[in-house]
Amino acid sequence: MLAEHINPFINSLTTTFQTMLDCKMTRGQLTLSDSLATLYEVNGIIGLSGKAVGTVILSFEAQLAIKAASVMLMTEASEIDTDVTDAVGELTNMVAGSAKAKLEKYELSIGLPSVIVGKPMHVNFPSSVRPIVVPFTCDWGTMIMQVGLEPKEAPVAVG
Amino acid sequence: MLAEHINPFINSLTTTFQTMLDCKMTRGQLTLSDSLATLYEVNGIIGLSGKAVGTVILSFEAQLAIKAASVMLMTEASEIDTDVTDAVGELTNMVAGSAKAKLEKYELSIGLPSVIVGKPMHVNFPSSVRPIVVPFTCDWGTMIMQVGLEPKEAPVAVG
Repeated sequence: MLAEHINPFINSLTTTFQTMLDCKMTRGQLTLSDSLATLYEVNGIIGLSGKAVGTVILSFEAQLAIKAASVMLMTEASEIDTDVTDAVGELTNMVAGSAKAKLEKYELSIGLPSVIVGKPMHVNFPSSVRPIVVPFTCDWGTMIMQVGLEPKEAPVAVG
Repeated sequence: MLAEHINPFINSLTTTFQTMLDCKMTRGQLTLSDSLATLYEVNGIIGLSGKAVGTVILSFEAQLAIKAASVMLMTEASEIDTDVTDAVGELTNMVAGSAKAKLEKYELSIGLPSVIVGKPMHVNFPSSVRPIVVPFTCDWGTMIMQVGLEPKEAPVAVG
């Protein structure tokens, strides 16, 4: 993954959290993902495809997911229920959608978000792809964004 | 999700396992997904987008993922390492790619597979989508395919 491609995702994430949740996210150090990188308990995942293919994962500590959903839905969530996973899916959708608009040359469209919940878990991308991992912190806790995006190879002319 | 859309995915899965692994998969009963449906330990996930948006999850018992990867890579895997997750990602890619070809009218393209590994976990789709869950068994163990696919709404004419 090209490092220049991560900036639209970082900007989308900080803007989405500021606008939707009045939440200031502070970015930590970017790293290239290890094999089987660790995730937190609540993970929003969405695919991107077009002239590049990609996946975005927003991985939330449980307490951060619950607080973000509570603010977004103007309710007081106390556990990971479908309201919380819907809110996490929607945040994932917004971050990917807004980054997509800044990567026009790839003519990306986004898939359907799914949200995976469990004990801390691991994720792996195809070994041909080195996703970029970006940690963020805010007053409510910690999250990680992981993005893999690879331009598609141009078709080879035949004949 | 329309029930008629699940058949291309079921056929792709059984054909892919037969062709790639010489493994006969037997399908169980289709159900609509509950909120926070249960997944096994090894989960290949890929997005679909075009005139519909979707996500496919192939959820494997650990022993089945290890055995399938061993046959596919002609090796003897004994734990969930990056060889196994690469093989699961590639199987997920093949199943989605082959189903895509049978759903031409949606002009789907597929994203990048990611593979999430951990203790048994839960998944939730946006509550507007009711994904279809299909269990499969074979001599090596049990897996679940979960597919959510929604046609995009036609743009509303303005003016």
